[in-house]
Amino acid sequence: MDHTEAANSNSNSTSPSSSSSPPPPLPPAVVLRPCAACKILRRRCAENCVLAPYFPPTERAKFKIAHRVFGASKIIKFLQELPESQRADAVSSMVYEASARIRDPVYGCAGAICHLQKQANELQAQLAKAQAELVNMQCQQAMPAS
Amino acid sequence: MDHTEAANSNSNSTSPSSSSSPPPPLPPAVVLRPCAACKILRRRCAENCVLAPYFPPTERAKFKIAHRVFGASKIIKFLQELPESQRADAVSSMVYEASARIRDPVYGCAGAICHLQKQANELQAQLAKAQAELVNMQCQQAMPAS
Repeated sequence: MDHTEAANSNSNSTSPSSSSSPPPPLPPAVVLRPCAACKILRRRCAENCVLAPYFPPTERAKFKIAHRVFGASKIIKFLQELPESQRADAVSSMVYEASARIRDPVYGCAGAICHLQKQANELQAQLAKAQAELVNMQCQQAMPAS
Repeated sequence: MDHTEAANSNSNSTSPSSSSSPPPPLPPAVVLRPCAACKILRRRCAENCVLAPYFPPTERAKFKIAHRVFGASKIIKFLQELPESQRADAVSSMVYEASARIRDPVYGCAGAICHLQKQANELQAQLAKAQAELVNMQCQQAMPAS
């Protein structure tokens, strides 16, 4: 038996037999280069990995940020609960929120919301004042000078 | 030996000896009514429980919301990294963020930030327009009528 025969023989011994029972389903193929998430989690990155489309191998920092705040199991759970068309947006917003929480561990995104709410209230007050002044001036112009 | 002596004897047998070594530290006392977090996590609520001050037994819903989004281990980690004076605010912001994520699983808090940012921009544009109109009217009033 030469080397080729030996290789064939080994291959045959592990392949399913040619009986009438259907072959067992193949496990999802393992991709050659794992996504950033699987690489960091040190797990097998299957072809149907739910994280891979949003955390390609070049996006390690992005996954690390989301992972630090939400944890891998929550990220996977959130994504699985959404249709595929909405998952990219969900990942972006999770990474955004996680960055805010890392930057400001006390208030996170809620701090930015408070700040923007205050800014909007101040602008609304300034606008109301300017509009009142405008109405006042229009009235003065409309009245004949005494 | 009467009952009192027997009790004393048992007590002595379990108490530390009167040698120079200090007594071992007592384990934290278990509180009679566990906090909402420990109750939901089905764990022992010790007197020094990091979650108890912010999730009293009546606040089950509050913990469930934060737990669903961040998970218990992340909440505990975030709190342990902060001084006690800032933990109540951190819990409030986490519950706020988690509620936003449950209400809007795609955009969460980031959605509210986008909306507020847009509102602030619109108000800024309206204010600039009103202020320009005011300056224009003031110029017209200052000029002698032709």
